[in-house]
Amino acid sequence: MITMYITGIGRTKFGVLNKTLPELAYNAIYSAIEDSPISITDIDAVSVSNFLGGPYEKQLHLGSVISGLLPECNIPIIRIETACASGGSALHQGLMSLHDYDNVLIVGVEKMTRSTNKETTLFLGMAGDRMLDQQHGLIFPANYALIAQQHMIKYGTTHDDLALVSYKNHKNANLNPLAHFNYKHVTMNMINNAPMVASPLNLFDCSPISDGAAAIVISRNKRCERDIEVIGSAIATDYISLTQRKDLTTFTAAKIAAKKAFNQAKITPQDIDIAEVHDCFTIAELVAMEDIGICYPGESKNWIREGRTKIDGDLPINMDGGLKADGHPIGASGIAQICEIVTQLRGEAKKRQVDDTNIGLTHNIGGIGGTAVIHILRGDVA
Amino acid sequence: MITMYITGIGRTKFGVLNKTLPELAYNAIYSAIEDSPISITDIDAVSVSNFLGGPYEKQLHLGSVISGLLPECNIPIIRIETACASGGSALHQGLMSLHDYDNVLIVGVEKMTRSTNKETTLFLGMAGDRMLDQQHGLIFPANYALIAQQHMIKYGTTHDDLALVSYKNHKNANLNPLAHFNYKHVTMNMINNAPMVASPLNLFDCSPISDGAAAIVISRNKRCERDIEVIGSAIATDYISLTQRKDLTTFTAAKIAAKKAFNQAKITPQDIDIAEVHDCFTIAELVAMEDIGICYPGESKNWIREGRTKIDGDLPINMDGGLKADGHPIGASGIAQICEIVTQLRGEAKKRQVDDTNIGLTHNIGGIGGTAVIHILRGDVA
Repeated sequence: MITMYITGIGRTKFGVLNKTLPELAYNAIYSAIEDSPISITDIDAVSVSNFLGGPYEKQLHLGSVISGLLPECNIPIIRIETACASGGSALHQGLMSLHDYDNVLIVGVEKMTRSTNKETTLFLGMAGDRMLDQQHGLIFPANYALIAQQHMIKYGTTHDDLALVSYKNHKNANLNPLAHFNYKHVTMNMINNAPMVASPLNLFDCSPISDGAAAIVISRNKRCERDIEVIGSAIATDYISLTQRKDLTTFTAAKIAAKKAFNQAKITPQDIDIAEVHDCFTIAELVAMEDIGICYPGESKNWIREGRTKIDGDLPINMDGGLKADGHPIGASGIAQICEIVTQLRGEAKKRQVDDTNIGLTHNIGGIGGTAVIHILRGDVA
Repeated sequence: MITMYITGIGRTKFGVLNKTLPELAYNAIYSAIEDSPISITDIDAVSVSNFLGGPYEKQLHLGSVISGLLPECNIPIIRIETACASGGSALHQGLMSLHDYDNVLIVGVEKMTRSTNKETTLFLGMAGDRMLDQQHGLIFPANYALIAQQHMIKYGTTHDDLALVSYKNHKNANLNPLAHFNYKHVTMNMINNAPMVASPLNLFDCSPISDGAAAIVISRNKRCERDIEVIGSAIATDYISLTQRKDLTTFTAAKIAAKKAFNQAKITPQDIDIAEVHDCFTIAELVAMEDIGICYPGESKNWIREGRTKIDGDLPINMDGGLKADGHPIGASGIAQICEIVTQLRGEAKKRQVDDTNIGLTHNIGGIGGTAVIHILRGDVA
């Protein structure tokens, strides 16, 4: 791997926003440029991460839409889509393009809140298999409910453990002014009494439908002390449907990508200080911890019970509130994970700052583990 | 640029096909592997080109779908989308990834013929701007009609010139057993009396709605004599809507990408022997010739009148029948252009073989010139 740096980050608030897809992208892009020592005219190419611009907003060809937001509208721009892992995948591809370019902008954007619930269910189902899953009603909450049930049977995980994930992430989001749910006071009582979605997952086990955008600038050269090095970047894929998998309690693609990224970074899971993981449902955060190697399979329940992943714990996870409470504007989510790790490694996370962080990891999943992308970042602070 | 080779090509027939999206992809992938000295297990990563899998087939996350078609289902797979330029863009990105991988598979696939005309009009419009174009009825035939009108006013191009493009491409497609319209005997009389679509463009000025897939294997190392070198690969972007452009008779993005690709290849437009250009509408083929630099602006009408772009002409264009008559399964079209150039440079094009070809070019456009991708390939035969 060549050396690569993240030299700028920016994002919008996540939530139900009265802004169009291009407006959201614009705000994130220029926030990242403002944060960066690099000027917009130094950007050589752009990668756009978006999942549902076609179905939701009747707008594809987002590269060309975004060209109109730039002063130099003729630079190379492409769109990457790997369902909910689109952000991580766009960064992975963008890093490869640093062989040819000096500075590349990655922007993730999604507009999801203008449609009906029925439309949203259909559109999100496009991340699963049309014939094996969608047509039989095996939509995402149902898929993750099956995973939760298997995890409970195999390892003794309980719904109280899932509730603790939700509680932690909502509490963290209250420290994040840009989070979808940053103003909500969430109690264990509220979580335990929420309406059922797909047993054992209730409303508080599910990430919300959000609008939002996030952007980062990546560069071949280090420009200033705030720049954060990318020391691992790996992607792996798997069968699209759970019906094709042998074990529902683990995502093979995530394990493979994590192993590859740790090899690139020449570190082990025990060396990471903080992580942002893909908690589209609470059970996914527990599975992520086991797939990455933060703990052994089945052991994640002990970690959450003992509070080891809280902001003041051994290995804080989802400091920004995660997909659960920061929000999940799909194309932006993987990029927002990077923004949070960079903010923490720079020591700029204010009320949610974790002490003594040097190495952070992001774990971004598409579908039900059909795509997994892992990035490992290193700061200079420790 | 590192040295890069195309070491395998394969495609399905284009047309109204009784096959699913995964079936089409499967057929193209294994045709390319069969054509290649490389085994499927030597493939390190895959790029998927697809435009409308979501709207048409309710299937996104195609990387994960395609993982299930491979013996090793965990390799990196991403999807690229830049409207009708998705194929060229996927190849461009794939070539960049050869810094990290030895062999990469690029597969373009589209399933378009199961929907109503009304749906198709809506879906194709997603390549244009939602607010500036779609909502005012400025759909693609209308956009290209405006371009044709301006070209006629500025340069004296006539509908007879456009008819000659259509006639040539249909005649070429009759020599291509895999073309959408390869069985049709098309006369100038039929072309001139076809129903009007958007004046001056009639039905024979428009490419069809097709199903199909095409795949290529790209490699860092030359494996055998049939391998074809990629000597230029460039992409440029532009404002998405014609309403934002100054000149309707040229695509700035195509001119920029062509210039960059010629610089990489260290050749001039006069050095190319054959070209596949993006003739989604007949006028687009004439504009392409001028943007690439094959002729001066306004001069393309003379070339088509003099038959200089026929298979036995000075610089044959769209030997496979082009998008017009080979067909336009969008995600596959840019890859099929590469398949044709490789076939010609290898000397394997049978009845449509052009004599003494050494250098070929592909020109792949998204939207109304919002994305343009140019590739230049060199054979060893001359």
